[in-house]
Amino acid sequence: MNLKIAVLSGDGIGPEVILQAKKALNAIGAVYDHEFIFEDAYIGAIAIEKTGKPLPEQTLNLCRNTDSILFGAIGDPKYDNDPLAKIRPEQGLLKLRKELGLFANIRPIKAYPKLMNASPIKREILKGTDFVIYRELNGGMYFGEKTTNEAGTYASDLCEYNEEEISKITHLAFKAAQSRRKKVTLVDKANVLETSRLWRRVVSEIAVEYPDVDLNFLYVDNAAMQIVLNPSQFDILLTDNLFGDILSDEASVISGSIGLMASASLGEKHSLFEPIHGCYTEAKDKNIANPIAAILSVALLLEHFGLSKESKKVIQAVEKAIISEVVTVDLKVNSQFGTNEVGDFISNYI
Amino acid sequence: MNLKIAVLSGDGIGPEVILQAKKALNAIGAVYDHEFIFEDAYIGAIAIEKTGKPLPEQTLNLCRNTDSILFGAIGDPKYDNDPLAKIRPEQGLLKLRKELGLFANIRPIKAYPKLMNASPIKREILKGTDFVIYRELNGGMYFGEKTTNEAGTYASDLCEYNEEEISKITHLAFKAAQSRRKKVTLVDKANVLETSRLWRRVVSEIAVEYPDVDLNFLYVDNAAMQIVLNPSQFDILLTDNLFGDILSDEASVISGSIGLMASASLGEKHSLFEPIHGCYTEAKDKNIANPIAAILSVALLLEHFGLSKESKKVIQAVEKAIISEVVTVDLKVNSQFGTNEVGDFISNYI
Ligand SMILES: CC(C)[C@H](C(=O)O)[C@@H](O)C(=O)O
Ligand SMILES: CC(C)[C@H](C(=O)O)[C@@H](O)C(=O)O
Repeated sequence: MNLKIAVLSGDGIGPEVILQAKKALNAIGAVYDHEFIFEDAYIGAIAIEKTGKPLPEQTLNLCRNTDSILFGAIGDPKYDNDPLAKIRPEQGLLKLRKELGLFANIRPIKAYPKLMNASPIKREILKGTDFVIYRELNGGMYFGEKTTNEAGTYASDLCEYNEEEISKITHLAFKAAQSRRKKVTLVDKANVLETSRLWRRVVSEIAVEYPDVDLNFLYVDNAAMQIVLNPSQFDILLTDNLFGDILSDEASVISGSIGLMASASLGEKHSLFEPIHGCYTEAKDKNIANPIAAILSVALLLEHFGLSKESKKVIQAVEKAIISEVVTVDLKVNSQFGTNEVGDFISNYI
Repeated sequence: MNLKIAVLSGDGIGPEVILQAKKALNAIGAVYDHEFIFEDAYIGAIAIEKTGKPLPEQTLNLCRNTDSILFGAIGDPKYDNDPLAKIRPEQGLLKLRKELGLFANIRPIKAYPKLMNASPIKREILKGTDFVIYRELNGGMYFGEKTTNEAGTYASDLCEYNEEEISKITHLAFKAAQSRRKKVTLVDKANVLETSRLWRRVVSEIAVEYPDVDLNFLYVDNAAMQIVLNPSQFDILLTDNLFGDILSDEASVISGSIGLMASASLGEKHSLFEPIHGCYTEAKDKNIANPIAAILSVALLLEHFGLSKESKKVIQAVEKAIISEVVTVDLKVNSQFGTNEVGDFISNYI
């Protein structure tokens, strides 16, 4: 296979972990005879610095014309400390998601037996945990109208959803459940929010088309509790943009480190693969950032293009690194392995 | 002292845990020579059943004219399974909060050494955890305009805040921090939401008036992670209505059981004290519901009225029950003690 991939390394530890992800992809290419052509482009704080815009036209155009996107991280503490900044790195990612119609953010959550010590949650609670979060990514409070009054003493954010937006991701979630444990949990706040009640109705109606899949409901406050109390109850967790943002970060503690968490953002025409850890600027250029999330994003990419064998190979290589304790310091105190060494181990294994 | 208290036991396990809370208050009254006059009223599903309304006029009037309110729980699975019901038990509580101007919901989170085994989080992570969540309770997505289109294919919820709403709870939070570890963490999503940016500005400005208190910021997705990864970092966690709802339920896992979690809802003129566990209908009338959250709500009530000695006595009695393992099954597998026995032990100790 021949794939053209836009590489948006972004900010912070983005570039160094993406470098390892590319190494893994190249190793797969060599072994299985595929060609991956990478094209780099700016996004986020680095793009603001170079072009004044968090998502330059050139980057967007490139992304429209490649087969897929590998994304590193965006953000810079300098903007965090200035919440009133009009131009922000995050806008680049949000605009990219919207422009490319990447409506489904998919985050697998798994407890690796070998890593349970690294998780703050007790081993007996984690056992058997293996679920996937389907977060809607193009709607909700992220994209509704925002207002302030002139005096700056009032602000509002509108949360909006329509049937079609809900329907698209719901079908993906139910299809995924069919090839798993056949359970979808819709997380919402239907006892308070009108949009949640719309979600319940639309999802309930679609559920009828998937009689082999069980649908159940959980309020978001309860879900935030259940993810820690009893995470193995979940199979597919389906939710809106904002709740998905909160719950998927929370759920990342299950695997022992957010440095392990990969995600796929899918649309009708485009796809983007991204570690969820963010820019983690404090670790930049120290060779301590965990490259596994970026490398597992590559596994998701391969799977997405039907390269199952290749995807499994990547996962196997990652598991080998974990079992061999060739991991970064977030997973093993005083580990002598850095970003590069873990990346090398994994691509050599492949 | 002489206090007139409206007792809204509500639904599910509300009545049985409130019964134990009243016993504790009566014991305090007898020992310290106070008079507590209780007046019962309907709210929630039981109120809908009796009067057609989740918050009957009579209940609201009573609450306006008492010194304080003791609240049990509301909700009924029958409404949960019908998300489109126009009349819902929850509306009773929301309306009560709004009508009485109960703008601050205060939830103390503490890891009891004796109960760390009951928590899903590891002991070494929990050690030293002792923080208080200040959740804004009269604004945000809970009370903004809700719309649907005629076809029912579109819905919206408006999240709104103004400076005054933010300011009121922020002052309470900073004052609380001054008599604690002097740290306020504002949780928001300022990289996406306009209302969050308003929160940051208003809170930052108010912080200047409290130079002895440190203010820091955390995005809500990161906060959901930090509560599990490193809960002892927090002192006062300040946030909006929706984020507070999610994070305080999540944080309840720290103490080992949501059955321990009390809350105070305060306004300028009124106050309401409530266990946060909700109606838990499956446990109703089985003498297994944990009465401690309701009894600790009484401790918060006493403290609120300046009865510190009395409040400490209640807390001491609860701690004695915990140390003596006179606790319900949520805290000790196969415990032979039920709701009544735990309540009796505590009021006898007082
Ligand atoms: C960077 C930020 C805008 C983004 C989000 O909130 O969606 C991030 O937290 C994520 O989850 O990908
Ligand atoms: C019952 C519900 C409306 C309520 C809320 O969301 O505020 C509850 O979850 C709470 O936290 O008190």
